[in-house]
Amino acid sequence: MDKGQIQSRVSGDRLWSRLHAMAQFGGTADGGVDRPALSDAEIQARAQLVAWGRDIGLRPFTDAIGNLFLRLPGKEEDLSPVLAGSHIDSQPTGGKYDGVYGVLAAMEAVQAIVESGSELRRPVEIVAWTNEEGSRFAPGMNGSTAFCRPETLPEILSICDADEISVATAVERVLASDDDIPLRPLGRVTHCYIEPHIEQATALESAGRTIGVVSGIQGTRRYRIRIFGKAGHAGTEPMEKRQDALIATARAIEAMEAEARGIEDFKFTVGMLEIKPNAPSVIPEEAYFSIDIRHPDSDAVDRMDGRIREILDAARGSCKVDLRQIAHAASVMFCPDIQTRISDAADRLGVSSMPVFSAAGHDARQLSAFCPSGMIFIPCRGGISHNPAEQIEPDHALAGVRVLTQSVAELAAE
Amino acid sequence: MDKGQIQSRVSGDRLWSRLHAMAQFGGTADGGVDRPALSDAEIQARAQLVAWGRDIGLRPFTDAIGNLFLRLPGKEEDLSPVLAGSHIDSQPTGGKYDGVYGVLAAMEAVQAIVESGSELRRPVEIVAWTNEEGSRFAPGMNGSTAFCRPETLPEILSICDADEISVATAVERVLASDDDIPLRPLGRVTHCYIEPHIEQATALESAGRTIGVVSGIQGTRRYRIRIFGKAGHAGTEPMEKRQDALIATARAIEAMEAEARGIEDFKFTVGMLEIKPNAPSVIPEEAYFSIDIRHPDSDAVDRMDGRIREILDAARGSCKVDLRQIAHAASVMFCPDIQTRISDAADRLGVSSMPVFSAAGHDARQLSAFCPSGMIFIPCRGGISHNPAEQIEPDHALAGVRVLTQSVAELAAE
Repeated sequence: MDKGQIQSRVSGDRLWSRLHAMAQFGGTADGGVDRPALSDAEIQARAQLVAWGRDIGLRPFTDAIGNLFLRLPGKEEDLSPVLAGSHIDSQPTGGKYDGVYGVLAAMEAVQAIVESGSELRRPVEIVAWTNEEGSRFAPGMNGSTAFCRPETLPEILSICDADEISVATAVERVLASDDDIPLRPLGRVTHCYIEPHIEQATALESAGRTIGVVSGIQGTRRYRIRIFGKAGHAGTEPMEKRQDALIATARAIEAMEAEARGIEDFKFTVGMLEIKPNAPSVIPEEAYFSIDIRHPDSDAVDRMDGRIREILDAARGSCKVDLRQIAHAASVMFCPDIQTRISDAADRLGVSSMPVFSAAGHDARQLSAFCPSGMIFIPCRGGISHNPAEQIEPDHALAGVRVLTQSVAELAAE
Repeated sequence: MDKGQIQSRVSGDRLWSRLHAMAQFGGTADGGVDRPALSDAEIQARAQLVAWGRDIGLRPFTDAIGNLFLRLPGKEEDLSPVLAGSHIDSQPTGGKYDGVYGVLAAMEAVQAIVESGSELRRPVEIVAWTNEEGSRFAPGMNGSTAFCRPETLPEILSICDADEISVATAVERVLASDDDIPLRPLGRVTHCYIEPHIEQATALESAGRTIGVVSGIQGTRRYRIRIFGKAGHAGTEPMEKRQDALIATARAIEAMEAEARGIEDFKFTVGMLEIKPNAPSVIPEEAYFSIDIRHPDSDAVDRMDGRIREILDAARGSCKVDLRQIAHAASVMFCPDIQTRISDAADRLGVSSMPVFSAAGHDARQLSAFCPSGMIFIPCRGGISHNPAEQIEPDHALAGVRVLTQSVAELAAE
């Protein structure tokens, strides 16, 4: 295998044009992308990936949660595959690169390998995991979770979106739309996993480096809170007698945010909030909202968990509170061996790199407990993400593919 | 005219059974009523009123905003009518009595007059004003406003609900559903207006009195506020760099509510709040909410207007704020002559009464600038209103009708 020959077949233009072709599926007027997990837009994007894969000679596979795999055979087909990819669903106000960059980087790497005529020892598979974002169906990482821990499948399939459509129903629609794509079992033995992704932060940009060798992912907890008050007339009910679910909510959010601001590197977000009956002249009788907290140190997240409960209790007044934790992930450290492989590959290619810590969650979190895993970050402008203004440089996108290609080729030769 | 004979025809049972028949239109599982202005449920309730009116021998009329009038002719048909009634729309979490009690009390009074065989000098009209609540179409009091100030009609017709349906379209549907109900001009000369209503507060209950002679209505301002932030990733965007529209909103609501609590008798309510994109992992880029402030003293409302602007400016951080005042009504004092008439009627009937001030807005606010106007309050249990638990006593309901009947009979004899 001649790695120089493989690198010579990597095409930045092809990658870039595929990125922009994919952005059409769920593309929004403001240049962003709204491609919910398991939606029609995602079904179309999935079909496009399969078509490109078949053109290269890759075989598509799927599984009970709708993950998509595109397989390049190895010389020794019985060996476990090297897996690389990410996800293609987006947030409602998403950009063109979050997730899909990782999948198309893997496709570009595999296409370069194929075109160079190289045959690797192990199979290589491109993967697009189902519902990473957790926006339509919460929490996210459904595909990677079910793949790594098949026992979680029944619970994941029962999650419903705002329209009471279950993951089970939505996955069924996706599989029904597939054109002759065989189903494989979850939890298949995997040699290793590499996920390229935009950084969604500014460490690389600030340091002027191109490649982030991701050392780990911060710890996170996610909650759903329901506050129950009492409806009443906005013009007559005396303030001191009210059970206003929104006032209790506002007080709690304000206090939690102030608390989070006092802790370096802490992230606190209420991204979802709905009140009932949501009528201007009626005191809100119910508030329903999300809390998302993250920190590189799991202990800091655990301490905030206690504070959230204390603050809610102090802020609720005479309202009742129902708090449900829907996700809890300790901080993760990636396999040192994979980190070394990525950083060595960058060195050999003459691309600048540095270790970075991921503030965002990724499918690689799930995979890291399943097989040796790692991530390659490239810079994104201003750290802006989950936003139509999300932007990356073509040179960085290409450099990420080169480092991935080098790493995959080495790992598949093992 | 023998008023004793008229009073002998007043039937508390008939009133009560009509109240419960009306509660079926838009009735909810929890015993409440959800009957939005100009909705199908209201169209059915309106048809029921017309049917009852025709049975009594009353002629129905409507106008360009869909107000419903049921007319009892006077001996001198050219004289301006005595008007009595209220509204039949409800809040989404409404009860069985708010509004509809006033319309059915007027119907009971008119039916008693008819059955007694009395002929009054002036015509008497029962009225149900369009969209008092302002919940589906904001702000409310559309019918009484357009009636008293016909020049406001074009602006009112252009108001849209959450589904972008305009008042114009909704009124057209109502008029199309009417069974041969003639249209009359807005702004017709009116001798006087009396509106019976539940108190929605506890002054009567606390004092153990049955009839509230309403002296006036508190001042009010209503706003819609839009806060513009920037979407971003919940896991990566550092707290100090965020433009979180919800955090700015929570801070503002918390501070405004604290301010309002410091002023005796002040009412501050945020009943409506929506955020975008409303996704758990995305920093809110926009918040849209209502503010409703009220106080018996217009100056206190005006001072709070200034504080709201200051608080929003202090709370917004790096977000942008767009504040729009959608309604502004100074406090109102009702015609002393009508107040005396109501309180004398109560005395003569041996029903306990007291002067009360209305904390809630009513159509009588609009009418008070158009013709001599007044209101009759009856107690509602615990002051609870805009809530399925809204409750009144049959004896109080009947007493309200007796006082109204007496007052109307006298005013129509003038």
